[in-house]
Amino acid sequence: MDAPKEPTFDDLRQAQARLHKQAVRTPLLESPLLNQRLGGRLLIKPEMTQKSGAFKFRGAYNAITALIERDPDLSGVITYSSGNHAQGVALSAALHGVAAVIIMPDDAPAAKIAKTRAYGAEVVHYRRGRESREEIGENLARERALTLVRPYDEPLVIAGQGTIGIEIAEDVQRLGLTLDAVIAPCGGGGMSAGIAIALETLLPDTALYTAEPEDFDDMARSLVAGARQSNASEGGSICDALMTPSPGELTFAINRHRVKAGLVASDADALDAMALLFDHFKVVSEPGGAISVATILNGAIDITGRTIVTVCSGGNVDHEIFIRALSR
Amino acid sequence: MDAPKEPTFDDLRQAQARLHKQAVRTPLLESPLLNQRLGGRLLIKPEMTQKSGAFKFRGAYNAITALIERDPDLSGVITYSSGNHAQGVALSAALHGVAAVIIMPDDAPAAKIAKTRAYGAEVVHYRRGRESREEIGENLARERALTLVRPYDEPLVIAGQGTIGIEIAEDVQRLGLTLDAVIAPCGGGGMSAGIAIALETLLPDTALYTAEPEDFDDMARSLVAGARQSNASEGGSICDALMTPSPGELTFAINRHRVKAGLVASDADALDAMALLFDHFKVVSEPGGAISVATILNGAIDITGRTIVTVCSGGNVDHEIFIRALSR
Repeated sequence: MDAPKEPTFDDLRQAQARLHKQAVRTPLLESPLLNQRLGGRLLIKPEMTQKSGAFKFRGAYNAITALIERDPDLSGVITYSSGNHAQGVALSAALHGVAAVIIMPDDAPAAKIAKTRAYGAEVVHYRRGRESREEIGENLARERALTLVRPYDEPLVIAGQGTIGIEIAEDVQRLGLTLDAVIAPCGGGGMSAGIAIALETLLPDTALYTAEPEDFDDMARSLVAGARQSNASEGGSICDALMTPSPGELTFAINRHRVKAGLVASDADALDAMALLFDHFKVVSEPGGAISVATILNGAIDITGRTIVTVCSGGNVDHEIFIRALSR
Repeated sequence: MDAPKEPTFDDLRQAQARLHKQAVRTPLLESPLLNQRLGGRLLIKPEMTQKSGAFKFRGAYNAITALIERDPDLSGVITYSSGNHAQGVALSAALHGVAAVIIMPDDAPAAKIAKTRAYGAEVVHYRRGRESREEIGENLARERALTLVRPYDEPLVIAGQGTIGIEIAEDVQRLGLTLDAVIAPCGGGGMSAGIAIALETLLPDTALYTAEPEDFDDMARSLVAGARQSNASEGGSICDALMTPSPGELTFAINRHRVKAGLVASDADALDAMALLFDHFKVVSEPGGAISVATILNGAIDITGRTIVTVCSGGNVDHEIFIRALSR
């Protein structure tokens, strides 16, 4: 694929055009009762209602569509993913009629593995923390002449995720709101990078924050250090979608000067946020998808008197974990 | 309020303008995997993500806004409702800064009662099946100089619900789909009446069906009989939002020549549909909100080779019942 250079705002507009008839144009949702309790305005961008149940469809569909524009005979794609990018790629490949091979950790949620297969993709497992998914991916890509679609360190993927930022700006302007901040859940940093590029052009006065689970706060620490930091482990959070070892090279280059700070919340905060999203917004969030809301609930950021959009990134969660969130 | 005459398509357009900045413009959601399994295209209109957690906000906000346009000194409104219209009226009144009194059955879900109060409304209880809520409402309206906003037999409310039909038509045209049918959950018949008026102008070849729970299939039987029929009881379905005694006079006059047939599903079907909406669409549905999807799952209507939109009307459900749906 592309040499990793930063996508431009024009690349985001191109992505928006590619996604126009395929992606869900998610609205902003708001709960007057919750606002009363919080003393500020919280709007959520419900990307769990996106095709394949997570925002990842945006980047995957944009990338595969662009690849086919360049090479109409593209034989197939390959990627590695803990689950949501896997489903986004599998569905996008199926929509285009090309083959997809997905490298997934053996401890990924059952629902994510099953759905990836159901979209027609071939799933190859690796042991999280023991094998390098990047290596497996590059080897298989070579052997089988597949094109690698990286989950975040890829300009076309970042541009696709950036359409979230364009839509937020459109809605905020239509509603006549002054938006203080956007909070984006952060794994490898692709979503925040894309949103950063959109905000820079459309809402330059709005601050951008990332949200991560405890022990996987590599972006928060990298922003403070000014250089990419790694996490100690690759397992151990309920937020399976956000357990990346470190920020991407390209995504960090984009985020480091544009993200104001990295916020952190615990697994317990994420479960509380899932219940709150059930009660006030009637949406199904997976733990990682609720982490941005969790940083408001735990006070990592103060919403008093402010207007904040939190992106809720996905809803691919097993029944058992959801019941746990509702039973607390 | 108005003498009950049928709203026109122009009344729906006026409602759409009033709702433009206040209501959520819900998208149509689709699951490629579910379509594969069903052998047809199922799109849902997720009105649980509407303000106040149900489509009822549309009709309530349109009615109260119109009343205030006519009488800027309106002192307050009153209504009777099992819960969703209650919340829609309470929130709409609060947004306009007018008082609201809501007459609710004493067995309404705790979450619905609590939220109605939280919006600032006064809740008056009655015993379902033993007292007439219509009588209590009319008496209190007189005594306290409040304006009655009926839950369905009211042209302004029907026009507000009809904006659902306009949005469905807009999205279907944008996506280039040929829509075979729309299925609307049916209590008093206000939503189906509003959608009928929209489809008549915008999608005249699309069939409209109502969906009701077993034992509360008054609309289905009324359509067959050609005259309004009543239900034997006022209690005994998990679909608390749909337990109306009979179709409204005005709503039946509109529905009888425009609704193709009334479909019926059991409480168990509704719980299955709630789990399916969780798995494939990542939305939280209350039992009554899932009844339209339930009529597809139980085969009351055949989706094979067809494209159908089901309106999912609300998501105001207690944790316990939702856990029950996920644990089956």
